[in-house]
Amino acid sequence: MKSALLATSALVLAAGAASAEVSLSGSARMGIVHFSSGGDSTTLFSSRVRVVFTLSGETDGGLSFGASVRHDQDDAGDDPFGIGAGYLNGENTVFISGAFGKLTMGDVSGAADALVGQVSGVGYGPNDDTQEINFLGTIKTAIYYEYSTGPVTFGVGIGQMDTVSLGGYDSYNVGVKYSDGGYSAAIAWERWEAGSDSLDMISLGGSANFGDVTVKARVSDLDISGADTAYALSVDYVAGPTTFTAFYTDYGNTGIILNPYGSIDPDVKHIGLGVAYDLGGGATLAAGVTRQNNSVFDDITIANAGLKFSF
Amino acid sequence: MKSALLATSALVLAAGAASAEVSLSGSARMGIVHFSSGGDSTTLFSSRVRVVFTLSGETDGGLSFGASVRHDQDDAGDDPFGIGAGYLNGENTVFISGAFGKLTMGDVSGAADALVGQVSGVGYGPNDDTQEINFLGTIKTAIYYEYSTGPVTFGVGIGQMDTVSLGGYDSYNVGVKYSDGGYSAAIAWERWEAGSDSLDMISLGGSANFGDVTVKARVSDLDISGADTAYALSVDYVAGPTTFTAFYTDYGNTGIILNPYGSIDPDVKHIGLGVAYDLGGGATLAAGVTRQNNSVFDDITIANAGLKFSF
Amino acid sequence: MKSALLATSALVLAAGAASAEVSLSGSARMGIVHFSSGGDSTTLFSSRVRVVFTLSGETDGGLSFGASVRHDQDDAGDDPFGIGAGYLNGENTVFISGAFGKLTMGDVSGAADALVGQVSGVGYGPNDDTQEINFLGTIKTAIYYEYSTGPVTFGVGIGQMDTVSLGGYDSYNVGVKYSDGGYSAAIAWERWEAGSDSLDMISLGGSANFGDVTVKARVSDLDISGADTAYALSVDYVAGPTTFTAFYTDYGNTGIILNPYGSIDPDVKHIGLGVAYDLGGGATLAAGVTRQNNSVFDDITIANAGLKFSF
Repeated sequence: MKSALLATSALVLAAGAASAEVSLSGSARMGIVHFSSGGDSTTLFSSRVRVVFTLSGETDGGLSFGASVRHDQDDAGDDPFGIGAGYLNGENTVFISGAFGKLTMGDVSGAADALVGQVSGVGYGPNDDTQEINFLGTIKTAIYYEYSTGPVTFGVGIGQMDTVSLGGYDSYNVGVKYSDGGYSAAIAWERWEAGSDSLDMISLGGSANFGDVTVKARVSDLDISGADTAYALSVDYVAGPTTFTAFYTDYGNTGIILNPYGSIDPDVKHIGLGVAYDLGGGATLAAGVTRQNNSVFDDITIANAGLKFSF
Repeated sequence: MKSALLATSALVLAAGAASAEVSLSGSARMGIVHFSSGGDSTTLFSSRVRVVFTLSGETDGGLSFGASVRHDQDDAGDDPFGIGAGYLNGENTVFISGAFGKLTMGDVSGAADALVGQVSGVGYGPNDDTQEINFLGTIKTAIYYEYSTGPVTFGVGIGQMDTVSLGGYDSYNVGVKYSDGGYSAAIAWERWEAGSDSLDMISLGGSANFGDVTVKARVSDLDISGADTAYALSVDYVAGPTTFTAFYTDYGNTGIILNPYGSIDPDVKHIGLGVAYDLGGGATLAAGVTRQNNSVFDDITIANAGLKFSF
Repeated sequence: MKSALLATSALVLAAGAASAEVSLSGSARMGIVHFSSGGDSTTLFSSRVRVVFTLSGETDGGLSFGASVRHDQDDAGDDPFGIGAGYLNGENTVFISGAFGKLTMGDVSGAADALVGQVSGVGYGPNDDTQEINFLGTIKTAIYYEYSTGPVTFGVGIGQMDTVSLGGYDSYNVGVKYSDGGYSAAIAWERWEAGSDSLDMISLGGSANFGDVTVKARVSDLDISGADTAYALSVDYVAGPTTFTAFYTDYGNTGIILNPYGSIDPDVKHIGLGVAYDLGGGATLAAGVTRQNNSVFDDITIANAGLKFSF
């Protein structure tokens, strides 16, 4: 016998706002991914299912608290290019929030990830790292505090301060975002320390909406001598239920913030073109093509087409 | 504080049919399993819990879509005979369906498994592989398409077409099933290719219902020179809340489609007898005895008794 | 789109009591843990999320049945002291109950754990093993039967009777508990057998409530020549929403029932002091300090402060 969860907001409101509860949401995708490079090519099926548990409650004094944890599938068979590799039961966070802001602990990456973010990608999901520039991030369990006042959001985070197995890394991050109407701008600074060594990165992000067109940009700069600036740019154009997206990413020349399909080329750039059609009810049909331009190795073409669903 | 899910269909209908939602169902079993072979014997407790997430939605154009993923327990302690070994978070599938049929991607085994199926087994669950003859199946992520018109269902599937770590296996399957009133008949063909090598299997299945008696049969033939035909037969007799079941399985002489408790005997046969009593509300009391007849190794007797529950 | 689960008891009753269903509950915690020993010290963030699936049903004859399984996060990054280490999808149990009592199979530890239990600990959760004395427990899959009549509860359990990989351990346990008004007393006996070797432990537990004060005590004795008796004592004092707790634990000198942070000191004692403040709605603010006194190694101070939530 199946126990169904109700989804109408009317019934949810009737249940009382202050009750501690566990709710479920989910996402899934299915489609085909094609890779070609030099004379070789391969085409793969790729699908994924994820369920998210959202735990929420409220103290007598009006503070909100909650937690979130993901239920992922295992890897479904062979996964040669990192497509669909599940991070089992990942993305766990616990938070408390109130007038003082929101304090989150767990799998939190910090201010740069939360406030600067990434530009838009193309396709139905499995190649969503080609438009993303890595952040330095944090050793988990990390902590992140965020406070918003009007259009300004301020965030500060610390990675696990002291660890045995990883030899005492420290990681810090701080950032601020301004978002008003159709415009946003954010800046964040991240730092890793390991003994007397350290690594800093500063990231800027912005978005602007002009009617049917949204432009997003990101720039990140490492404090390494001779390091090129990494940057990403995307344009989304909405025409009714259809969204056209183009992006360009330059990962710089350090290899540190570069993680697309394990490429070790010193100078990787991506250009992507895609289209998505909203089928309604949480379903989207999407396709995209991305070209990876390498300086030493063969260039790679990545194309995917499929469906993505949200529940 | 516990958040309970509602199970009545009236409330579910009130929630609106078109909403994307995540629902839960589950199964569990508990009991005792006994093995004896030659002079040795052992008796083990065996229990298992599984929860299934079912994600479902509908596009504005009336296509159904959804996904499914399982939450399994880990292995509970020692598991010497593969009893209760959980496939963690397995059985993940994503589908879209409409007038054109149903297209499913993920952990799908293909047309032979879906249309030919297996005969009935005995006991409360932990030895359900003794009546099953393996299919060739597919490398995952696989894809399966099924279309039904009246009493006829047609299915075709492809395993992961090209993989790096597994060396480029291809797997294909196609089948058709006729099911009308109390009778069904199905035929399916499966093929694996690895470079210039290939393996084919053809499987036939059928069932017939004569009032309280249901007979199921399956035959599978590998295209290997000298391979015996593998076959399985079961009879279920329903007397009120009680069901009596007997089955016979001959795995042939190839060892390829043979996987009962890791036996490497070249000629394995099983005969099983069981009884199940429906306690109502989703609970069943069941017991069964299976005899494994080997040509070279000692015969094995497997008996189990316990409860199985569905939620 | 998110599917919310309802939490009000009125709606749950409307759903019909006899329907088989799957419900969700959860817990989470977030805070800081500090360790210092000799000249070294470290401070760590520690958070955790858990969700519990509860499956329940009822047969036509009025027997209750059900199952439970946990969804845990993976370890969130580095976990140098065993803090927050998730036991993935653990604690799975299956039961049937009625006038005859309750029979449970799965991850059950037995009569000593269920009836004698542990004394109160301090802090928000991550160091809850310092006040706990290990039981012998059972090899899983285990079975446990419990029967209550008036104030008396009787329990008996068996660990997995015969295992291959673990060399044929047998484990047994039996216990009885009297609980009436504000007082309880329990006694349990556990035995492990491995071939001709065996190990027995007898445990006594008791609690007494005097208005705002609750006292809990536990004593465990191993049948090893020269083994000291292990014991634990706690006092809880409730003042409105605030609970003050103190405990003392002496693990004896065998090292067998000692598992606090992997210490191999032959004579470990803990003293702990803590305070918890109920914020309402399932949220508690808690802090505690525990001193581990070792006879050979340096003493260790463990302090934690944080929030714990139930959903």
